[in-house]
Amino acid sequence: MEQEKIKKLEKNIIVVFVEPETPGNIGFIARAMKNFGLKKLVLINPCKLNDEAYLHAMHATDILENSITFRSIQEMLEELSPDFIVGTTGVPGGSYKIERIPLRPEQFAKALNTKAKIAILFGREGNGLTNEEIRECDIIVSIPTSQEYPIMNVSHAAAIIFYEIFKKRDYNREGVEEASGLEKRLLVSDMEDIISSLALPDHKKRVALRAFKNLIGRAFITGREAHTLKGILRRIKNKL
Amino acid sequence: MEQEKIKKLEKNIIVVFVEPETPGNIGFIARAMKNFGLKKLVLINPCKLNDEAYLHAMHATDILENSITFRSIQEMLEELSPDFIVGTTGVPGGSYKIERIPLRPEQFAKALNTKAKIAILFGREGNGLTNEEIRECDIIVSIPTSQEYPIMNVSHAAAIIFYEIFKKRDYNREGVEEASGLEKRLLVSDMEDIISSLALPDHKKRVALRAFKNLIGRAFITGREAHTLKGILRRIKNKL
Repeated sequence: MEQEKIKKLEKNIIVVFVEPETPGNIGFIARAMKNFGLKKLVLINPCKLNDEAYLHAMHATDILENSITFRSIQEMLEELSPDFIVGTTGVPGGSYKIERIPLRPEQFAKALNTKAKIAILFGREGNGLTNEEIRECDIIVSIPTSQEYPIMNVSHAAAIIFYEIFKKRDYNREGVEEASGLEKRLLVSDMEDIISSLALPDHKKRVALRAFKNLIGRAFITGREAHTLKGILRRIKNKL
Repeated sequence: MEQEKIKKLEKNIIVVFVEPETPGNIGFIARAMKNFGLKKLVLINPCKLNDEAYLHAMHATDILENSITFRSIQEMLEELSPDFIVGTTGVPGGSYKIERIPLRPEQFAKALNTKAKIAILFGREGNGLTNEEIRECDIIVSIPTSQEYPIMNVSHAAAIIFYEIFKKRDYNREGVEEASGLEKRLLVSDMEDIISSLALPDHKKRVALRAFKNLIGRAFITGREAHTLKGILRRIKNKL
């Protein structure tokens, strides 16, 4: 049954709510999704979808009924293989390492290509996404807020991000095919080979690879660009 | 100077929730207000502010405690005399007379006058603002939504409007500095040297450089990432 639902997923935006703790918030997110034309809800190891969820979903109960549940993010990634994984976080934090610059929702929406299959991850109400989960993401989106009280309710954050996406849908770059997840991983893997051939301490190699991954993750690279860059990286590799 | 204007803007915006029916939504609106630096909440003939309101407000209980209640919009107008009354509506509907063309939240935010005292009215959960209340407003703001399900939860609509207002602020993404134009040009120039050392026809070199430029242009690269990548490109260059 789940398999059939999965087949129905078209190339599009998948909203992934990771370990939701309160049914009400699942309902609120379903409603906000439907308000902005999103349909595909995935729940990772969720609390029970009780009456409260349906109550808050209002006329978006179909989205709850058609939602798919996985036990882990890993399982979701294996089953759905999205081209892009987008993490949302409310606490960009002060101590930026090379990790990741969060995009503002409007920057994310502007760069978005709807032809790619994109999974947008929303974290637990209490703790959001873990650092490890965030590291797995290609892009991080964060809503700028007042410093006095930066923690938003997850469904309100979701509504803002969905609205920004909805706003931009007319401006999608038509006819431009996004590089697949595989194409991007191959670019990263080629770069890894190149970096490993350089005389650098290990930690510098890791940081360099991280920076390149960030670049690839955020640039909404097209299939054509990926192909071109792959050719260049291969030649560099061979020459080194 | 700009900061002063912003402070004034925030001080001068009054959020008016007209006859709220569920305490939870009052709490949610208070929280969204605090997330985006708004402080003044006015309630018109509200339901009781019970525990549920405080529970949903989370760390914005001060906004609930400092909220002012009036029996009617009329009484509020007489007591606070705002310069502008802004009505929000979720149902622009097909039957617009010449009455009022609603602004989208971002248009409204752009047009906001920082010197004016502005009251933003949010309507009842069930029926929104009445036609008569809408007629009393100077401006109508409406969030474009999917036609399939245009009715948003009032607190989610509020969060989107507050965010659009907040966006007018100068974002300073703490600790994360975008790479300068020069840093990006230097990356491109290094890549140009690398590509030119490869055995490729000229037009392929041009396409490759273009692809790399696109990548750098779209990736919202940080100064730190640019620095790291520059180091790698330099080493590749030296080794080739």
